Amino acid sequence: MTTVCDLLVRADQILTQNPLRTVIEQGGIAITGDTITDVGSWEEISNRYQPVNTLDLGNVLVMPGLVNAHTHAAMTLLRGVADDLPLMEWLTKHIFPVEQHLNRDFVELGALLACAEMTRLGTTSFCDMYLLEDATYSAVDKAGLRILGGEGIFMFPSPAYPNTDRGFEIVKELHAKWKNHPRISQSVMPHAVYTTTPAILTRCRELAEELDLPINIHLGETPTETEQCLKAFGKRPVPYAHDLGLLSPRTTIAHAVDLTEAEIDLLAETGTVVAHNPESNMKLASGIANIPYMLEKGVRVSLGTDGAASNNALNMFTEMTSCALLHKVHSMDPTCAPAQSVLDMATLGGAAAMHRQDIGSIAPGMKADMIALDLNAPNLLPLHNPVSHAVYAATGAEVRMTMVSGEVLYNDGTYLRIDYPALVAEIRAVRDWVRSKLV
Amino acid sequence: MTTVCDLLVRADQILTQNPLRTVIEQGGIAITGDTITDVGSWEEISNRYQPVNTLDLGNVLVMPGLVNAHTHAAMTLLRGVADDLPLMEWLTKHIFPVEQHLNRDFVELGALLACAEMTRLGTTSFCDMYLLEDATYSAVDKAGLRILGGEGIFMFPSPAYPNTDRGFEIVKELHAKWKNHPRISQSVMPHAVYTTTPAILTRCRELAEELDLPINIHLGETPTETEQCLKAFGKRPVPYAHDLGLLSPRTTIAHAVDLTEAEIDLLAETGTVVAHNPESNMKLASGIANIPYMLEKGVRVSLGTDGAASNNALNMFTEMTSCALLHKVHSMDPTCAPAQSVLDMATLGGAAAMHRQDIGSIAPGMKADMIALDLNAPNLLPLHNPVSHAVYAATGAEVRMTMVSGEVLYNDGTYLRIDYPALVAEIRAVRDWVRSKLV
Repeated sequence: MTTVCDLLVRADQILTQNPLRTVIEQGGIAITGDTITDVGSWEEISNRYQPVNTLDLGNVLVMPGLVNAHTHAAMTLLRGVADDLPLMEWLTKHIFPVEQHLNRDFVELGALLACAEMTRLGTTSFCDMYLLEDATYSAVDKAGLRILGGEGIFMFPSPAYPNTDRGFEIVKELHAKWKNHPRISQSVMPHAVYTTTPAILTRCRELAEELDLPINIHLGETPTETEQCLKAFGKRPVPYAHDLGLLSPRTTIAHAVDLTEAEIDLLAETGTVVAHNPESNMKLASGIANIPYMLEKGVRVSLGTDGAASNNALNMFTEMTSCALLHKVHSMDPTCAPAQSVLDMATLGGAAAMHRQDIGSIAPGMKADMIALDLNAPNLLPLHNPVSHAVYAATGAEVRMTMVSGEVLYNDGTYLRIDYPALVAEIRAVRDWVRSKLV
Repeated sequence: MTTVCDLLVRADQILTQNPLRTVIEQGGIAITGDTITDVGSWEEISNRYQPVNTLDLGNVLVMPGLVNAHTHAAMTLLRGVADDLPLMEWLTKHIFPVEQHLNRDFVELGALLACAEMTRLGTTSFCDMYLLEDATYSAVDKAGLRILGGEGIFMFPSPAYPNTDRGFEIVKELHAKWKNHPRISQSVMPHAVYTTTPAILTRCRELAEELDLPINIHLGETPTETEQCLKAFGKRPVPYAHDLGLLSPRTTIAHAVDLTEAEIDLLAETGTVVAHNPESNMKLASGIANIPYMLEKGVRVSLGTDGAASNNALNMFTEMTSCALLHKVHSMDPTCAPAQSVLDMATLGGAAAMHRQDIGSIAPGMKADMIALDLNAPNLLPLHNPVSHAVYAATGAEVRMTMVSGEVLYNDGTYLRIDYPALVAEIRAVRDWVRSKLV
């Protein structure tokens, strides 16, 4: 007896990322609504289901959509504005002068470009902290991706609010406005320890508990941050955050670069999630997070690109490559950060960073968030090991199909939700506006 | 008065890499035969020339084709066979068992795949050391790329020869056979200090001098190599090679990882070229070459991918990214390895590694080797700085057109010389052969 389903997907290879890390040759996936209902060999699945539609993808590798665990989407508009500079010069002479003039249109347009880039390069979900985040949600609503977002909370005024009290109101308003959206979730996002006070951080924790929301914060990004935190609060960033009750399974900390082993032990004990951003940390010369020790201690580690101003792409495939290569050479151990661990960071780790159990793998009950890589691309030939190809050989541009919640967002060069030519024209116009704001 | 030329190329942006590093907006390039005769604004150039053909590329960034300064092309067939292993286990259990069975068909097919990959991802020239190199030349002859190649010389038999004497004969035969080919050049390539003797290295130098050929050798790749060289010859690899007369403007050394500053000074004094392979050095945990010091001392540095078995792609765009990011975080200085320096390595540095003055930039008198990147790709929007985009944001897959010697090899998804569907089918068949040879 066959069961009805909305869609059957067929592919030569399916990399499931299920608990057994099964790879299925000649596989099929049954989808109903936004959810995967079954996965198996094409023979089994096609006999078992009667689909409304069938999508035969041919010689592709279908895998879970990647999860970008830390970014600032709208900053795509500042991609390549300035590079190769000391952090303070880069920020004060190039980034802040533009961000001073931020408005809703800028954020929505930048976030829409970010969505187009991530869709094109195989990312289906992302964590985002920025200003005027409501505009980012509008872009995500249009583009069809999945987001855990939050308005950055600072101790000073931002382009979104005149004072921190109003910032907290915005978080509540965003929650009320978007809480029933199927793809948009909200987090409480204090920016960092050096841009907030203990009272603000405590209030963030209380608000997160009250509304049952996650918390995201930049923490331990640079030795400078550590020095400042020691000077201001007499503690290093991780113990300081812990004493304020911020470390918990509810919390994802971005960067976690300048941490002692004892501080990493604390992350493991408290169930705190880490969003590792190797390319941004390398480009800004912030340092190298001790990921091998985190993995050894069972810390849940996810992977992110950070913003396009310091990366300069939102490409989770090249981020995986950089992650694997960096930790091998840093530890002088080629067995460190093996391909499967790194792919886990970019999928299941990302699910942890988004505080969800229903993304990161292709298995019954999971959201139908998946991508298909063209296995005829020259850099993916021959196919000896799909996990190796995903981490070491793919550029992301091999993605031929991107699906979120069972809906195809990109197929063979065409965006199905975004009017891409119109977006390109708008981006060209805003480029001159950005230039006019630079010192 | 207008001059006749074969081809006029028009592009929205031309990144020339000329001595002034000029970027031309709305630019034109005049080509006659295999050579660039003029470059300037489209208005100037189109008024000055009467072309047989015109190629209007639209909103692209035309730039010099990248030069892969060190690879082993045929090893594409071993891409992803094994990763994340200690070097000796990787070599003895996975790479050598297959290479034992090498034959001409394997090498030609692997090299043709490498050419397809490099053509697709924007590399127009490469230095190649392998076994049965004549088969690689056949592939390059077909595919249309430019190569400086060489048969690897070892002190033991190889699949290409029963003894080293015969190896030297092969080098001479290859030289005689290919010396008039417009795109195929020959180098004398002793494999490394640990796989040769002083007598063999001396003979290599003498042969190179006799035939006026370059020399390429792996040198200073790992601390293990240094130890072995000290034990066997009482000297570290660089002084050992120098005492045998190998360091000179004729020579390109690959890797140069485990070097002292005094040894780098020696490279500068002797005019020796370095081929830096950051991704392979990271993946195999070999170490980090001191590129900042080399650049400071004026050593000519080029960039290479190494073979696809240890990279796992032949992608010079991601190699540039890795190069820039690695040296920033290693030196903890974000101004280190700036984008322009890294792009120079991948173009003009590559020309030095190939021992040519006629490639690496878009300028009158240079070979017409160029590529066009799609500036409408989402990860290249907006365009603030083309050099930044080339190094930090591009994946290589944005390449829409690849030209060597004035001939278009790839255009908008289509290979004009390679029968790509046939190649894919052949690669699939050889995959099973490779698997059957693994332990």
